[in-house]
Amino acid sequence: MHIKIENGMVSFPFSVSIDSVTGRMDDFDTHTERHLSSLVDLFMDPDAAKDFLKSNGDAIAYEVYEKNLPKVNGDIRFCSSITYPGRIGDEYFMTKGHFHLRRDTAELYYCIRGKGYLLMEKEDGEAVLEEMSPGKIVYVPGYYAHRSVNIGDEPLISLPVYPADAGHDYKTIEVEGFRHILVAQNGKPTVIENPRYGRMRK
Amino acid sequence: MHIKIENGMVSFPFSVSIDSVTGRMDDFDTHTERHLSSLVDLFMDPDAAKDFLKSNGDAIAYEVYEKNLPKVNGDIRFCSSITYPGRIGDEYFMTKGHFHLRRDTAELYYCIRGKGYLLMEKEDGEAVLEEMSPGKIVYVPGYYAHRSVNIGDEPLISLPVYPADAGHDYKTIEVEGFRHILVAQNGKPTVIENPRYGRMRK
Repeated sequence: MHIKIENGMVSFPFSVSIDSVTGRMDDFDTHTERHLSSLVDLFMDPDAAKDFLKSNGDAIAYEVYEKNLPKVNGDIRFCSSITYPGRIGDEYFMTKGHFHLRRDTAELYYCIRGKGYLLMEKEDGEAVLEEMSPGKIVYVPGYYAHRSVNIGDEPLISLPVYPADAGHDYKTIEVEGFRHILVAQNGKPTVIENPRYGRMRK
Repeated sequence: MHIKIENGMVSFPFSVSIDSVTGRMDDFDTHTERHLSSLVDLFMDPDAAKDFLKSNGDAIAYEVYEKNLPKVNGDIRFCSSITYPGRIGDEYFMTKGHFHLRRDTAELYYCIRGKGYLLMEKEDGEAVLEEMSPGKIVYVPGYYAHRSVNIGDEPLISLPVYPADAGHDYKTIEVEGFRHILVAQNGKPTVIENPRYGRMRK
């Protein structure tokens, strides 16, 4: 379905549906599949990620369905975010994570399926973890980078909603990383300092 | 849980949960119950509403759970909206509906449970109906008043999300009404012109 735009804003109502089992959106403009091969440097142990790839093939770590909506103040954007279960060594599958270009914009995550965490971190390193489980709403205030982490054994599906003019800054995380990461220690999700912080790209 | 505010914005992450069966929010600041007795003039046939009250008592037509969040540009606000099944004559139970004070702001409804419609209408009278069923996202563009209508036999539960500076204009609808309303005709939901449009209040 074609979105009607007038004066730079969405000008006519529309609806889409998210499948609560697969997370698939029934009508979308963009579908992004993030394969592990493109995420090797995201993890604490890139060599372990390479070994995983050799043994298990190039799995999809997460995918995103989106409508291409205007990025104008007053409008809202949303997507369907699906992070698959899995681990590289002790580190759970997760999304890249991002800041907003416009730092003073919030985001809301509604969890549809699965079990995990939203890891949020300010540029000064303050980190906050909020649990994701069905029915849960996590509020990400402005100035917090945020990433989904799947600690369960089924897809972690959520609906993120944010001001349309927020913009995405992926680069800061790709280059610097999060200062904190979530790993399994004695079978329990545990926040530790990221040993590769500040040098995620070799 | 107390929301942390700094420079007028939410400054620390938090989470709440919506029960997918009842729509109840586990942590809220405001809980609004709209009893039929306060909604008599909302319906096409106020006398039928009075008769209903006499026969069935003062049922709750809808309720809303909210966190009191700042109304600042860049933040997001949300609530849990529960519209109960029922009819006054041929007219389904519904919410009052509202415009945004800041007309050029959108809103997104995610449907958690039930069966109904979002009725949207511009000030020039252009009306659009989008179905609500679990998993459905309805996008309400700026300039459209919007109301939930329950056509099923269970609660219609949804999660509305909107820019925090949108503001609510209930008054225009309370005084003028919607130009179109949704009624059951031969058992099917049908949009008709509102015979009381422009004179909702006697």
